[in-house]
Amino acid sequence: MSDISAYAAKSNNGHMEPHKITRREPGENDVQIEIEYCGVCHSDLHAVKNDWGNSEYPLVPGHEIIGSVSAVGSNVDEFSVGDSVGVGCLVDSCQSCEACDIDLEQHCLNGAVMTYNSKTDDPGGRTYGGYSKRIVVQKDFVLRIPQNLNKAGAAPLLCAGITTYSPLHQYGVKKGMTVGIIGLGGLGHMGIKLASAMGAHTVMITTSQDKAKDAKRLGADDVLISTNKDEMKKWRGKFDFLLNTIPVGHDINPYVVLLKFDSTMCLVGAIEPLESVNGAQLISGRKVVAGSLIGGLKETQEMLDFCGQHNVVSDIEKIDMSDINDAFERMQANDVRYRFVIDMETL
Amino acid sequence: MSDISAYAAKSNNGHMEPHKITRREPGENDVQIEIEYCGVCHSDLHAVKNDWGNSEYPLVPGHEIIGSVSAVGSNVDEFSVGDSVGVGCLVDSCQSCEACDIDLEQHCLNGAVMTYNSKTDDPGGRTYGGYSKRIVVQKDFVLRIPQNLNKAGAAPLLCAGITTYSPLHQYGVKKGMTVGIIGLGGLGHMGIKLASAMGAHTVMITTSQDKAKDAKRLGADDVLISTNKDEMKKWRGKFDFLLNTIPVGHDINPYVVLLKFDSTMCLVGAIEPLESVNGAQLISGRKVVAGSLIGGLKETQEMLDFCGQHNVVSDIEKIDMSDINDAFERMQANDVRYRFVIDMETL
Repeated sequence: MSDISAYAAKSNNGHMEPHKITRREPGENDVQIEIEYCGVCHSDLHAVKNDWGNSEYPLVPGHEIIGSVSAVGSNVDEFSVGDSVGVGCLVDSCQSCEACDIDLEQHCLNGAVMTYNSKTDDPGGRTYGGYSKRIVVQKDFVLRIPQNLNKAGAAPLLCAGITTYSPLHQYGVKKGMTVGIIGLGGLGHMGIKLASAMGAHTVMITTSQDKAKDAKRLGADDVLISTNKDEMKKWRGKFDFLLNTIPVGHDINPYVVLLKFDSTMCLVGAIEPLESVNGAQLISGRKVVAGSLIGGLKETQEMLDFCGQHNVVSDIEKIDMSDINDAFERMQANDVRYRFVIDMETL
Repeated sequence: MSDISAYAAKSNNGHMEPHKITRREPGENDVQIEIEYCGVCHSDLHAVKNDWGNSEYPLVPGHEIIGSVSAVGSNVDEFSVGDSVGVGCLVDSCQSCEACDIDLEQHCLNGAVMTYNSKTDDPGGRTYGGYSKRIVVQKDFVLRIPQNLNKAGAAPLLCAGITTYSPLHQYGVKKGMTVGIIGLGGLGHMGIKLASAMGAHTVMITTSQDKAKDAKRLGADDVLISTNKDEMKKWRGKFDFLLNTIPVGHDINPYVVLLKFDSTMCLVGAIEPLESVNGAQLISGRKVVAGSLIGGLKETQEMLDFCGQHNVVSDIEKIDMSDINDAFERMQANDVRYRFVIDMETL
């Protein structure tokens, strides 16, 4: 669950600087991957800046990793040198608890090992992520990338893709349903593409009129401007499912009223406290507010296969490794459509 | 959907006084019921006091109605004179919308007709409830009461029973699951009895040490005192399902942490705004906060049959009609174990 890395945040000033990290040699169940692309997730920036108070430096972010296999351990029959593979947010779990048993390794009761900034028995004692030339990962946590997908565009599928696919899939989104995607960023733009590919009537719900045109290009059938009270009233009780990608605390009540009776809004972004929730709305309509966190390995592979079938990748801006600090700044200003992906050739 | 009544609240001073209400003669699809018992629900008190601002006087409360059939319309083959029957919170719905089509008449998109204080085409233009000698109800909204159940004890099943049964059933409560019932009142005591009858390991979660003994008597396997921090910590992540019957706005976060990953807390009481909800808790554990409102007719009959099989009725205090104003006062002081039921012989 570790790697060779040349980039790390040496301090918590939010600035990435070169740093040398301990290497793990591939063991018998491991796959060694030459990293070609790595997506830049908001979590990376939070980790680099220690926003969550759990960062240990040196820290190598990156959990949207695409590359090709350069070596496999003696017990690995599943992958061969040259295979296109990916690594997402997880690199290990106990594989024997109640959560792992039902393919929800992200909820491992013994604590999943995250791709970076997570404790491990490897040299260095920590995992180091994908802003790097190479990574060594246990075979069960390596994913196959469909050949037809653009590799750079596929990188964000490993986090933004599965984070949005999992709830859409879990709540049975399909043709005949009206699905709202709240918030148009890295997660939201994947939500539109995936809900649309699943056949749902997909509605982008955003505060920004500017984003309406882009939402349609991404596959939205309709756009609902949430600051327009008349529009919001018109859509009351119309949604079979809402995917809420807003990344900060907010008032969810205006969205809950958009749900049909017996329907669900799932949060994937707001890890902060939400404002007061109207209990009567939930009770009187038998409505549900749920959360969802990435996805397990089985579902992540299913998502990648689905994206292969429907030719879905992320809209990206490819950057050089040396652009990362600028990219972080632009992300903070919400100035990216819709994901930065680092070309690791440039490292 | 109306009745003959002799008691109504003439004003919104929260006091019941005698009043004469217009009668409906049974139509061809109607069942006429001589009311024997009527449970006293908190909603009755809210309606009498116009707490929700929608009361029209004269108002006859009561939607936990048990009686026997005294007449049936010409199209009614389902019921005969002398049958033990019940009427709950609903007396009509459109029976043709998306909600009615899936037996969720309580969410009728054209507006269900509630048993009292609801608009209707009948003489008087309003429905009048069960604090009365007789009621006339469309046959599809009349329920069969299993013969083995105590009639007075069965009355609260029509609201408190279905309100708790529906979410327990909907979320698949069964043997092998650990289920918490939060709050021990009219709803909570039914929650314990029903979850226990479904075979779950049932835990009463209450602020009150006084209620612990009673909870065990009602069928709880364990009692968790929610003001005890060590106890609350011990039960973290242990519950497969939580039924939250607290009737006022409160902080749900301490309860959400008690849930296992991928599990649900369902609200049935708190129609007021809830305090800030921790989005991270929902997301990181793929947890769900849901609401549930009574149940449809099909599920209500299923609940009554289940109670018949398991001999489950409510713990009640039988009162005379003339005691109703005292009973309201005691309810407000939370001084009832666990439901008042009016003996309509005394009217």
